[in-house]
Amino acid sequence: MSGLDVHVIPTDAPDDMSGLETLLETEQFNVDQLICLLGKTEGNGCVNDFSRGLATMAAERTLGAYTPTAPAEINDDVMLIMSGGTEGVMTPHLTAFSRLPPTTPRNTEPRLVGGTTRTTAFDPAEIGRVPQVNATAAAVRTAMERAGIHRPEAVEFVQIKCPLLTANNIEQARADGNTVVTDDTYKSMAYSRAASALGVAVATGELSADAVTDDVICQDPSVYSSVASTSAGVELDHSEVLVLGNSPESDSDLVIGSAVMEDSLDTAAVERAIETVGLSPTDPDLSSNIRNVLVKAQASSDGMIRGRRHVIHDDSDIQPTRHARSVVNAVVGAITGDPLSYVSGGAEHQGPDGGGPVAVIAQVE
Amino acid sequence: MSGLDVHVIPTDAPDDMSGLETLLETEQFNVDQLICLLGKTEGNGCVNDFSRGLATMAAERTLGAYTPTAPAEINDDVMLIMSGGTEGVMTPHLTAFSRLPPTTPRNTEPRLVGGTTRTTAFDPAEIGRVPQVNATAAAVRTAMERAGIHRPEAVEFVQIKCPLLTANNIEQARADGNTVVTDDTYKSMAYSRAASALGVAVATGELSADAVTDDVICQDPSVYSSVASTSAGVELDHSEVLVLGNSPESDSDLVIGSAVMEDSLDTAAVERAIETVGLSPTDPDLSSNIRNVLVKAQASSDGMIRGRRHVIHDDSDIQPTRHARSVVNAVVGAITGDPLSYVSGGAEHQGPDGGGPVAVIAQVE
Amino acid sequence: MSGLDVHVIPTDAPDDMSGLETLLETEQFNVDQLICLLGKTEGNGCVNDFSRGLATMAAERTLGAYTPTAPAEINDDVMLIMSGGTEGVMTPHLTAFSRLPPTTPRNTEPRLVGGTTRTTAFDPAEIGRVPQVNATAAAVRTAMERAGIHRPEAVEFVQIKCPLLTANNIEQARADGNTVVTDDTYKSMAYSRAASALGVAVATGELSADAVTDDVICQDPSVYSSVASTSAGVELDHSEVLVLGNSPESDSDLVIGSAVMEDSLDTAAVERAIETVGLSPTDPDLSSNIRNVLVKAQASSDGMIRGRRHVIHDDSDIQPTRHARSVVNAVVGAITGDPLSYVSGGAEHQGPDGGGPVAVIAQVE
Amino acid sequence: MSGLDVHVIPTDAPDDMSGLETLLETEQFNVDQLICLLGKTEGNGCVNDFSRGLATMAAERTLGAYTPTAPAEINDDVMLIMSGGTEGVMTPHLTAFSRLPPTTPRNTEPRLVGGTTRTTAFDPAEIGRVPQVNATAAAVRTAMERAGIHRPEAVEFVQIKCPLLTANNIEQARADGNTVVTDDTYKSMAYSRAASALGVAVATGELSADAVTDDVICQDPSVYSSVASTSAGVELDHSEVLVLGNSPESDSDLVIGSAVMEDSLDTAAVERAIETVGLSPTDPDLSSNIRNVLVKAQASSDGMIRGRRHVIHDDSDIQPTRHARSVVNAVVGAITGDPLSYVSGGAEHQGPDGGGPVAVIAQVE
Repeated sequence: MSGLDVHVIPTDAPDDMSGLETLLETEQFNVDQLICLLGKTEGNGCVNDFSRGLATMAAERTLGAYTPTAPAEINDDVMLIMSGGTEGVMTPHLTAFSRLPPTTPRNTEPRLVGGTTRTTAFDPAEIGRVPQVNATAAAVRTAMERAGIHRPEAVEFVQIKCPLLTANNIEQARADGNTVVTDDTYKSMAYSRAASALGVAVATGELSADAVTDDVICQDPSVYSSVASTSAGVELDHSEVLVLGNSPESDSDLVIGSAVMEDSLDTAAVERAIETVGLSPTDPDLSSNIRNVLVKAQASSDGMIRGRRHVIHDDSDIQPTRHARSVVNAVVGAITGDPLSYVSGGAEHQGPDGGGPVAVIAQVE
Repeated sequence: MSGLDVHVIPTDAPDDMSGLETLLETEQFNVDQLICLLGKTEGNGCVNDFSRGLATMAAERTLGAYTPTAPAEINDDVMLIMSGGTEGVMTPHLTAFSRLPPTTPRNTEPRLVGGTTRTTAFDPAEIGRVPQVNATAAAVRTAMERAGIHRPEAVEFVQIKCPLLTANNIEQARADGNTVVTDDTYKSMAYSRAASALGVAVATGELSADAVTDDVICQDPSVYSSVASTSAGVELDHSEVLVLGNSPESDSDLVIGSAVMEDSLDTAAVERAIETVGLSPTDPDLSSNIRNVLVKAQASSDGMIRGRRHVIHDDSDIQPTRHARSVVNAVVGAITGDPLSYVSGGAEHQGPDGGGPVAVIAQVE
Repeated sequence: MSGLDVHVIPTDAPDDMSGLETLLETEQFNVDQLICLLGKTEGNGCVNDFSRGLATMAAERTLGAYTPTAPAEINDDVMLIMSGGTEGVMTPHLTAFSRLPPTTPRNTEPRLVGGTTRTTAFDPAEIGRVPQVNATAAAVRTAMERAGIHRPEAVEFVQIKCPLLTANNIEQARADGNTVVTDDTYKSMAYSRAASALGVAVATGELSADAVTDDVICQDPSVYSSVASTSAGVELDHSEVLVLGNSPESDSDLVIGSAVMEDSLDTAAVERAIETVGLSPTDPDLSSNIRNVLVKAQASSDGMIRGRRHVIHDDSDIQPTRHARSVVNAVVGAITGDPLSYVSGGAEHQGPDGGGPVAVIAQVE
Repeated sequence: MSGLDVHVIPTDAPDDMSGLETLLETEQFNVDQLICLLGKTEGNGCVNDFSRGLATMAAERTLGAYTPTAPAEINDDVMLIMSGGTEGVMTPHLTAFSRLPPTTPRNTEPRLVGGTTRTTAFDPAEIGRVPQVNATAAAVRTAMERAGIHRPEAVEFVQIKCPLLTANNIEQARADGNTVVTDDTYKSMAYSRAASALGVAVATGELSADAVTDDVICQDPSVYSSVASTSAGVELDHSEVLVLGNSPESDSDLVIGSAVMEDSLDTAAVERAIETVGLSPTDPDLSSNIRNVLVKAQASSDGMIRGRRHVIHDDSDIQPTRHARSVVNAVVGAITGDPLSYVSGGAEHQGPDGGGPVAVIAQVE
């Protein structure tokens, strides 16, 4: 057990890997140490967001130059998660999570650790249903173990990339005599994110496995995980899991803390998350001590916030997730003074309706 | 001199005048007292934003029921300014500025006053050039006088609605043997907003009239007014001016204060504006004492904020002003706790590049 | 029985009623003769399209100046249907349908007639279900009778404006102990359009009333009307119906004919519709003899056209109906040589999946 | 001299190279024979269109598997031109231009030939000015020679990919004491496309070199090439040129012909282009004999088409090129019956204002 290091790399374009290259050239970490590259890329974050694929392919080419693995296979070793959408003043960037070498001295206080794993491929009939919840819960437990996290309360953020239904695998399900949760491939993204988030809730003990039935998934927003952040991608048939938390066995000089935003303007939650990592929200040097803030954002489904109407769901020109990311990034930036944060949309069962989990990774002096 | 009252009316649609109707029915003010109806309507705030026209026409119909003036002529008596764009969580609303009856007792402290006026029609060749600056300056001085503001420092916010060039009046200018500042009607909106803002700066003494040449307009962002908020509309050939400030002669229980945001995340400026009206930014009851916050927003032209890149100018799917409004409203809401504020885009010479004036209208206990 | 006249009025803005005014001033028709004003306005044609409301309010103000009826009541006498979306090169315009005075001599050939009516208000629980189908069918039969159309085959185009579910009336339904067809107000527009279209199919005998069950509505695209064109509007609780067809009793010099496009590129159908009114698609003077072409457009739901993939449903920046209107207007214009046609989106049960009815109103020499 | 083969490959995504792979696997051509891969990818075709970069990177990876050249260097040997934007029903696809092996027997009639070349890197001060015109003209002449085209009239289509100004190279120009044509990087794309198109016009003799001054570029739309198709890309500092035409020395079974559309609805021009390759526009089998149609589209700058108003330039939600591509593709499809064509936007000096060149590549029986 050695702990995790985190590098944040602002980018000039989705395929700008010059910052990643510099880190590899200067041996901040090597490809073997890298467990996850988590990107905020500047597409629309919706169906036709090609900035994600471009960033992934560019990362594969760059990492491929520093490892014998072929570019197309890099993703088997390193979780490449690209989340689209940097609306408002959000800074496009990559966050590199790498294992520290085991030689560093050990802390006495809990410090940042992380672990990854993947599920086996899902049968299309399982997606968005209880089997996906259970398989995800098992994977989260494995990743916790790998991270050296033994207590569920020590989990602060779980990032999951999960599959979705496509015309092809819907047909396959039917050929097998099975039904699927929805015929609408776009909606299947929500179902898959939802089942993944509930899997996290089960693994962390936030939710009893018995409480999860198919009726809850995407239906009951009162049931949620406070640490899940999930996104669906067409390029995989299984799920990939990154668990982040703190452990006394870690020798990292970083620590992670989290809270849950109740709505998009919930500054108190962001401030609580900042305080849990030992920082003060009013410290003028705050941003220099924060490595990154990871947040899930969504517009409240009833079109109301603090008793006021918002028009996000009535705007047929801009997708709801685009509005929501812009707002939450601005709110976080109003506190940290930094426009760089990782805000991701589509938060089914990830925090309450209209809100979402917020995690802060900070440097300890 | 009697001072100004301000009512904020959240709306359910651009043509929802039920709240205005209630105020008229309950005699909060009558049409004669109303000097300006300033709306945030839920269109895109760009060229094809028809929510503004719809709100205007609906307001004319409603006000027309309470006055002998025909709906189509209402606008001659009451400034109807509809600003489009309620991105993110901004609440669509109307702000009604009405003169208090002269019977109310007088304050000793300066309190809210306001005055309106209009310029004569501009010759197309004057738009976006020095003559528009000068005529606007003269109008602002008139409105100040009507408001009972004798010291330029007492001006806290000046809202101007100004004309633009159209294919028709460009032709007219040519027929008259004149040139126009630009052939591009969309760009003429920026020129007209810019000349109007510089007119405010001249009237308030922020800028010497000698310093304004055609070379400055839309060219030198370092020259600006700290209290101007201007918007161009195709429906008028003159400019309309609303000046807001404080005067010891006012018997209003409201006060207005302002500051200048240096960039979209400048929370310190918003907090200063709040403090100038005697409130504390950390007061949990803050929003109940704030009537409205009026702000101009714009994305920095160099694509940078706080040393980080933003992609607002590279987003070909969403106009820059839409991004900017969402961010600044969220930043204001992060402080006040209220998603309702008046944030308007397109801030040429209205605060520094990337920033803009912010004014707070608050209730005095 | 006297037949129908049709005037097409290109507009310079949604509230440009100058052309309508000219027709009223020059006594082409008076307000009493006007039975329907059908507009193509230049908004996005989606939820937040305020060009429709603006055009309606402007029409009411203009018509109100030529009749003792108050503007707000005009719509009780004249069907005001504004359809948003003039993508591509579609010309924004109004089409005025007016009754000819009964003094004109009679034709022997069938000529254009039209009739209007409205249903009673729908209970929210009826919307998108069989009762709406049946009530619509009854109204269409009434409008046919008023038009003087006795044979269903003589019906060439039926325009319907129908209600939708809102948060308010969904609550009302629940308070009454009823269920609604969907909680999603946007989807309820599709259900209401669908039920209306099936009502047309029943009235024209295209479909047996027995064949319509709740399971068909919005579910089975193989069941459709070849002459229905329906749109949902939040401003009404009942449906309004305009039936167009030909009758030997009409003394109009216009005639209407129709066909069904199988997909967005189905030029053969447009040509057939042109031929049914006695014109030749290859006539170089074709457009001068066509008064207007009325079409419903939609993107095929399987993302395919002629064996090729289209990306309309994957475009998260532009709504599908916007793509579809642009294409079908261009296809019609490729044949007629005129960018002015009335193309409306959202064609559930109005022609086959991916296609839609097309009607041509032409002048007879 | 051996002539050119053309394969059209519909794609399922920007990075779908399965069709290209099949052609390489089945030895339809090898990487050495491939001179250009011209893609229509499904992004927005504007600044933030990442589908182009994704397609390029995917093509490099795929081609790299069939040649010793490293993926990052593939573009030195094969012109990879990705044009974004498949609005309406346009089919995303790739067109592969490959040299036929020299063993095939020779035709007597002129048949398809093609040649490529590149200019040297442009100094930033040259972009959008006369030096770029002249260098482009020289390159087009070289490519004509390589194609075996000796008579300018035999040139039917010239595709050019040209550089643009960026913040970086604008600074470089200034450091060198030079000015640039515009500070606005987006506008520099138009200037570079314009200068490239005029270079084509000079090379083909459509325009005298003396007639080209800096005042003409992007200013005088009456000066244009009838065969130029140019696009600007941030990834290159030089220009790349593909010339297509016919030569009696070619042994291809394909032929190319062209015409100029006067506006977006100019079906007569498309029909003339079809007739020049020996086909009949009314042939029901037309599409099976057409390999591809290459067109440039743009909305008329005065907002009018055929005396009617279009609102393309007033739509702040959809970029003008997106509207224009949708319309022209639909018009071509209305004639050919096929939604697959290559329609590219941004047509400065490429055909008259509002129109553009159209070329048809067809199979000869």
